[in-house]
Amino acid sequence: MLRSGTTCFNDMYFFPQAAAGAAVRAGMRAMIGMAVLEFPTAYASDADDYIAKGLAARDALRESPGITTCLAPHAPYTVSDRSFTHLLTLAEQLDLRIHLHLHETHDEITQSLASHGCRPLERLRRLGLLGPGLIAVHAVHLEEHEIDLLAVHGASIAHCPTSNLKLASGIAPIARALARGVNVGIGTDGAASNNRLDLLRETSLAALLAKGSSGDAAALPAHRAIELATLGGARALGLEHEIGSIEPGKAADLCAIRFDALELAPCYDPASHLAYAAGREHVTHVWVNGSLRLDNGRHTWIDEEELKNTASLWQTKISPRNPM
Amino acid sequence: MLRSGTTCFNDMYFFPQAAAGAAVRAGMRAMIGMAVLEFPTAYASDADDYIAKGLAARDALRESPGITTCLAPHAPYTVSDRSFTHLLTLAEQLDLRIHLHLHETHDEITQSLASHGCRPLERLRRLGLLGPGLIAVHAVHLEEHEIDLLAVHGASIAHCPTSNLKLASGIAPIARALARGVNVGIGTDGAASNNRLDLLRETSLAALLAKGSSGDAAALPAHRAIELATLGGARALGLEHEIGSIEPGKAADLCAIRFDALELAPCYDPASHLAYAAGREHVTHVWVNGSLRLDNGRHTWIDEEELKNTASLWQTKISPRNPM
Repeated sequence: MLRSGTTCFNDMYFFPQAAAGAAVRAGMRAMIGMAVLEFPTAYASDADDYIAKGLAARDALRESPGITTCLAPHAPYTVSDRSFTHLLTLAEQLDLRIHLHLHETHDEITQSLASHGCRPLERLRRLGLLGPGLIAVHAVHLEEHEIDLLAVHGASIAHCPTSNLKLASGIAPIARALARGVNVGIGTDGAASNNRLDLLRETSLAALLAKGSSGDAAALPAHRAIELATLGGARALGLEHEIGSIEPGKAADLCAIRFDALELAPCYDPASHLAYAAGREHVTHVWVNGSLRLDNGRHTWIDEEELKNTASLWQTKISPRNPM
Repeated sequence: MLRSGTTCFNDMYFFPQAAAGAAVRAGMRAMIGMAVLEFPTAYASDADDYIAKGLAARDALRESPGITTCLAPHAPYTVSDRSFTHLLTLAEQLDLRIHLHLHETHDEITQSLASHGCRPLERLRRLGLLGPGLIAVHAVHLEEHEIDLLAVHGASIAHCPTSNLKLASGIAPIARALARGVNVGIGTDGAASNNRLDLLRETSLAALLAKGSSGDAAALPAHRAIELATLGGARALGLEHEIGSIEPGKAADLCAIRFDALELAPCYDPASHLAYAAGREHVTHVWVNGSLRLDNGRHTWIDEEELKNTASLWQTKISPRNPM
């Protein structure tokens, strides 16, 4: 992620302390989600156990530099009303964001209509979860009044275009959401459905898909797409006063992209060039909170050889060909 | 293009000798189109003049290594029945492919219905142009029977997904076309609507869009997507006996992609990795006809500094801020 210029990420997965530890070791900023589901996994046994483990991780991470936390109920179809209500209380008490997969697939909506008599977003509204602290991840299938609901309540969308295509979920109506004033940030989703975790490519794809799916070649112009990838993401996390733009008083979370590469000549419009022509291969330097993390393409805080060896070790360990 | 592993391209633009000259200097294989339109440009005055100039260029290029030519009527809305008929005769006499923009936009189809009483593909069929030598570029808007027509006549589609999105043309029904047996190659379109000319990214986008637009996450799997970018393109050009795959008797048009980069670890499935995780930044070596053209990321036949200077010179010359 650092190599594609990402300085901060918001994550939802099991074992939040492991994710936070990796972010701290890489020197990245991260908002780590405390995942909650109703069913047991290797991480926790039931919703109460997930919440207890999440809160314990949150306490343990209190002193970790650059690490914040949020509540991460997995999705409407894996979390009960009781747990959502519990999480809402926690969100209010602890001033935490709520990050969840929402309206990702048609199935999710059909299932909610059958089980709850309404679409997932309406269910969240009734439960009181719809508000400025809500990060709706994916938000592929939205009716007009649902876009308005997100806008009126100040909720954010985390747009993950590659994942939505790869899983055949569909194309999120981002041009319409932006036109109604919904805040949108760009996400990659996880490695299982994205493979690259390359924010620059996601930003480019977001700009292209908004045009192709809306039939309007002026939809989501380059500069606006870059805003989603920076300030839009910061707003979704409630960190827009600290990060997301280059301003006095904000942290120096920066990324340098070389435009002197042969394949980028000539450059007429830097914003257009960044959105449509450049890529992570042109990212040379990344700073997080003023501290250099990528120096001319080399990680300063990560031993690359050691990390490759670790990846190689785990590849054998979790290979489907190795039942151990 | 060489930097993203492209060894051969098919082009349609004015001044074919200039495009061919650039390909020869870069050491690339190219099928250069002889553009034909009815209206005057800086290059030619009318259809007969375009054809005459194209044929003269073809004669001049006869000895150029790796260069072949094709006929390139611009599009159904810019070429008359008379010119199409003339081009068909030439195609048959000279054994040339016909490359044209086809069913790129709704407007093109509406206009054809008004002017010719039928959709462009049907018009081409009536004129006799539909055959194995036809390269239908874009082919975004196709009805079921039109896909069948392309399949039955053995025509090819040049799929240009980024351009189709950026110009808000739509998404070509590639999964359905492949299911019916239409040959598909991957294109980038020109710099005006693509900005990167990166075949690896187009291949990745083709694989993703086929899934997202068909609602089938199994559509256009990675290995098949790579086949479109290689053998599919070669078949479209009628060069499948010379290039497009690694086989005894074929030319050594090859590209090496390093998979040892940190961001590519671990790799379980090379085809999936190539389609979804790797990019042009991992292309290290490119050979055309057995001769090294890119050596560990450095061009062997192109003076990079000189080319940058040339680009810089022309940037000033053609800047909209410079009326000269």
